[in-house]
Parts: sequence; structure tokens; C-alpha cells
Amino acid sequence: MSRPISVLVHIDAMRHNVALVRKAAGSRTLWAVVKANAYGHGLENAVSGFAEADGLAMLEASEARRARAAGWQKRLLMLEGFFDAADALELEALGAEPVIHSRWQIELLKSMPHSAFRVHVKINSGMNRLGFQPAESAQVISELRSIPGVEVLDAVTHFANAELPFENASAASVSTQLRQMQPIAEREELCMANSAAGLMQPAVAGNGLRAGIALYGISPSSDVSSHELGLKPAMTLSADIIALRSVARGGAVGYGSRWTAQKDSRIAVVACGYADGYPRSMPDGAPVWVEGQIAPIAGAVSMDMLTIDVTHIPQAQIGSRVELWGEHICVNDLARRCGTIGYELLCAVASRVPVSSN
Amino acid sequence: MSRPISVLVHIDAMRHNVALVRKAAGSRTLWAVVKANAYGHGLENAVSGFAEADGLAMLEASEARRARAAGWQKRLLMLEGFFDAADALELEALGAEPVIHSRWQIELLKSMPHSAFRVHVKINSGMNRLGFQPAESAQVISELRSIPGVEVLDAVTHFANAELPFENASAASVSTQLRQMQPIAEREELCMANSAAGLMQPAVAGNGLRAGIALYGISPSSDVSSHELGLKPAMTLSADIIALRSVARGGAVGYGSRWTAQKDSRIAVVACGYADGYPRSMPDGAPVWVEGQIAPIAGAVSMDMLTIDVTHIPQAQIGSRVELWGEHICVNDLARRCGTIGYELLCAVASRVPVSSN
Repeated sequence: MSRPISVLVHIDAMRHNVALVRKAAGSRTLWAVVKANAYGHGLENAVSGFAEADGLAMLEASEARRARAAGWQKRLLMLEGFFDAADALELEALGAEPVIHSRWQIELLKSMPHSAFRVHVKINSGMNRLGFQPAESAQVISELRSIPGVEVLDAVTHFANAELPFENASAASVSTQLRQMQPIAEREELCMANSAAGLMQPAVAGNGLRAGIALYGISPSSDVSSHELGLKPAMTLSADIIALRSVARGGAVGYGSRWTAQKDSRIAVVACGYADGYPRSMPDGAPVWVEGQIAPIAGAVSMDMLTIDVTHIPQAQIGSRVELWGEHICVNDLARRCGTIGYELLCAVASRVPVSSN
Repeated sequence: MSRPISVLVHIDAMRHNVALVRKAAGSRTLWAVVKANAYGHGLENAVSGFAEADGLAMLEASEARRARAAGWQKRLLMLEGFFDAADALELEALGAEPVIHSRWQIELLKSMPHSAFRVHVKINSGMNRLGFQPAESAQVISELRSIPGVEVLDAVTHFANAELPFENASAASVSTQLRQMQPIAEREELCMANSAAGLMQPAVAGNGLRAGIALYGISPSSDVSSHELGLKPAMTLSADIIALRSVARGGAVGYGSRWTAQKDSRIAVVACGYADGYPRSMPDGAPVWVEGQIAPIAGAVSMDMLTIDVTHIPQAQIGSRVELWGEHICVNDLARRCGTIGYELLCAVASRVPVSSN
């Protein structure tokens, strides 16, 4: 082996999470969101772990190709549609279903011949990112249906604040966004829920649920733990201790001399740094798991290494495996400590970290 | 083409930066640090752009293999040495020179036969990360020299605060660390300087300079601009506008409804998100460059998209190329806005972003 760092993906946990979210989905189509290399878990692992989902939702034609090559025969949803004509051609050939969010995509569809291209129409109900306005939706959908070979399946939208209470003061609460969709609901099927809405917003119905973060075992809200939701984390990021040292009281560790020993201390150097995807902004005190105990980060995270205080863990030795996140260390807790969300940490795992599965 | 996002690496800028840092290095060996896939620039591009360096410094045997395969015939420095016996064997076969930082590495070297293994000895002069204590250095070096086939070239150390003034109040100023190295300097050659020390600490001498960030055209200090140092940024990260919308006064954009339109506004959606390596924590107002002008980030960065306010740039249209960082947008400025350093942004560019060079 080379540098002792790895991601282990737990296929069983992914299966467990799919089954759990399936219950929340009820009769809705369950889309498993696998963009960003399945949130860092590896697209091929997702094809295996999410086998019981109804479809995979993704971003790029290259991902659709990889999913088909890995044996995925069910539906494919392209969350941003196609990016140009060649892309559209390939998606249609792969049997993938693009989301149509912009006028230029309609014009492009009109300029091409189609045999059977099933599409979804994106509606902007308050996120103000992608999609047509509700007021223009009838015209847009009718225009799309007039293109030979194009079939419109439903209207999709995305919530800006699905992890907050249904009614809240934000400019785009779930309640507000649902009201925007109401007139369309009378004419079209709707696909609206993400993980947070699927698990925490019973008022959000529709024909589909696009689950991402929950299927990887991570709670979509920092106010509710994965455990409370019954989810099992699917990724363990771990690395070995490659060096140990004594630091006398008053000694500082790492760049910027951020951490100073309050007493004579034993510091371990772990083969994981911010170029592996572990955030540089992680503060002192953030937990790792080593030899069955919590050890705190001590000193700024370097590009290729981080340092932990193992004064209280004499069993921690060269070669001890350190869990950075996984079963014992919650990625959402770490994310909160450095001002972000678990999604970003999972997606940031670098390509130099080998990914395997069990 | 597929999703319109890419990294363009400027080989000419890398050559320019090497020549500039070469002047600062004087007669010292110039090591170009290329770990983390050459700080996101692609190792093969670095082999080409850093052809005039004396050696490449890296982390993993796989990188050493890639460098050799790309035609690099000069020296290779392994900054963390080897990670196990198989690793050591491969490094010796590749003619790479490991840094020896821990007792267990000496024991491993003793247990193996060697034909010609040139090594460097890491000294901990105050960083308290890797390396032997100055007081044990003579014994360690003598012990290494007694192993048949092992040659010790020099003692290396690393500064914790090289971008701060030479004398400062931190527990590990350059001045303090140099004093720790002084007794060793009387017996051994020293390799100490990183980019910051090489460009900003004339008191740091030695036989080598390990330059990383500066060779990629980025200042090692947030207090001095790349331009002031004469460096040219080697990476441009850019992505296209894939959607445009009007947002009426009072409308909110994106997750958490963070940005609210103070007047009727025109918002562009750009095909770059935090899963591409653009930080999710980038605040509203951070600049991008589009159609020859600055546009501000407006709304939280999503996983695959970000939103900018182009109300004042009518030329911004579907397909307009947006520079996220590069010639016009300084990666250190962006990093400062989200509480980190340029190094982290460069290294975070995701594998799904295609890298090309010119």
C-alpha cells in the first residue's frame, strides 16, 4: 500500500437508507441523486447500493454513460438537462430524461429530430435559480408537447428551505413555494421533494422524491441527527497515524502556531489533509476516533496531514487507524464546526483518496 | 462538449514563475512542489511547466511513477518519505529521495537491503509536526549513515510562520526555528525554505528551496499580492452561464434565501458549484469576471451551480464564459473572503472538472 488514507463505502448502509426513504416516498417514484460522483461515494457503488431506487438523478452525460456501463437499466434523470446539442443527442440515445429549465433548451429541442425524448419541465417556485415562472408554465409545456418525439412527464421544482418549518419568515418557505405550484398541480404531475422535504415535510406530495444526502446516511438538517432519522452513514474516511511526538507545555503545533500545549502532550500526525478534502478550517477540538476513543484536532490542518492530541490514548501508535468521519464521527457535526454542511465535506473528498466498498 | 466548466493551466505562466523563483533561489537547489496533483494543475502539466526546476517534490510513489512516465528524469523528493516497505522499495527503484521523519522509518530501512538510497533527514525545529528533535539529529544521521546503501544528503525543516515577520511573538517564528537549526548547520547541509521563506525571508539560507504556491503564480502571503511579487497565476477556473432570470425587488435567490434583491435584478446561473471545488462559504459580493466586468456572487453557492448579479452587464448572456479565478480574479482574495487560503481552493478543484493546458 501507499499513503495510508482511504474511503470505505458501506453498500449495506446505502441499501438500508434506500429502504427507509422508500417508506417515506410511499407511492412516489424514488430518484437517487448520484451527481458529484455519488456525493463522493463513487457512482458505481451507488449503482449497486441504490439498486432498489426507481431511477438515478445526475448532472452529466458522462455520468449517465457510466451508470449504464455499470449495469443500470432503469430511469435516469438529468437535473440540469442538456448543455448543448451533442449532449441532448447522447442523452436521448441513453434513454435519459432531461429537465428543461430554459428557453434556449426548448429552441434547441425544436431544431433536432427526436424519436422518443422524455423530459421534465423545471418550474421556479421561489428558489430563483433554474426554471420557468409558474405563469408561463402552461405555454412552455404546450410548446414542448408540440415538438414531435418529445414527451413531457411532469413539472419539477426545488425547495430553498426544506429543512426549515413549513411556514417561516424566509422569502421562500415550503408553504410559499407550494402555493406557487398549486395552479400547475391542477394540470400536471409534480416532482418536488428532496431529502429534507421527503423526510420532514408531509405536506409535500407529488409523483416523485429526489433523495440525495439521506441515501448516503446523512441527515438533511443540522437540527436532526442521522440516528434520529434511522439513517446509516455510508462513508468512512480514515487514515493512519504516521508520526508521534511529545510536545512540552507551551509548545505550538502546525501552521500559524494555532494550538499550544497547555500541559506536556502527545501529538499524533495523521495522513489526511485539506488536499484530501478534510476542511482546512476545522477548529481545534473537533473530534476524530482512534483506538475506540475521541481525540481532538490540535493545530491547523495542513495540505497533507493533520495533528491530533492523543495524550489520553496511549494505545494510539504508529499505524493506528483514525476515523475522520463515519460511524463514530458525524460529518454534519464536523461541518457545523467549520461553518458548512455535510454535503460539502462528502463531495470534497479528493480523487487521490482511494475508494473501496464493503 | 458536456457541462461547460473547465480549468485551463497556463504552462507559460508556470515557466515564468520558475524563472522568477530561480532568481530568489540563487545557487540553491530549486524543488518544485507538485503534490496534490500539482495543487490541482495536473502533475503532467507541472512536469512540462517546471522543466527548469532541479527536482520535483511530492507525496506518493504513484506521483513519482507518473512523473517518470511523463518524462521527468531529474530528482524526486518525497516529502513524507515512504509509508511502508513496499513503498520504500519502489521509491528506491525510481531513484526518488525520501525524507526520513520518524524512528519507524529508520528501523524499516535497516531491515531492507539497499543499493543506493539517497535520503533527507527531517528536523522538527518548531512546527511540531514531522521530524526528529535537533538534539537527537546527530545520532539519527549517524545511525542512518551506518546503514549500507543509504546516503544522507541533508537536514530539512519546515517553517510554521514563514509569511510573518522574521521576528514575531508566535511560539515558532522563523527566527526561533533558525536558532534551533543552527547547531545542525555546522555539521550538515540544510534545506529549509518554502515559497514564503524563499521570497520573503532573506535570512534563510541553506542548499535548497522547496517552492509550491509561488510556482503556481499565487502569493504565499495574503499581505502581498501575486502581482507585487511578479508572479503570474497558472490556473483559470471558468464556467458558462447556463440560465438567466429576472428577480423582482424583494425576491430571494438560492438555498437559505441568503441574497435578496434590493431592486429589480438580473441573475445568471453559472455551471460551477461547491462539488467543483468553489467554496460553499463564499459570501455575497465575492467577485467573478464576465464580459470584461466584475459581477458579484448573489446567493449561496449550490452543489453544482452558483448565481451572480449581472444587472449591470447586459452583455452577459447564455454561454458567456465566467472566470471564477485566474488572471482577473485573485484566488487569495476569494480565499480571504471565506476564511481560508488560496492553497485550499486550488487543491479543491474536483476531478469532474476537466483540466487542459495552453
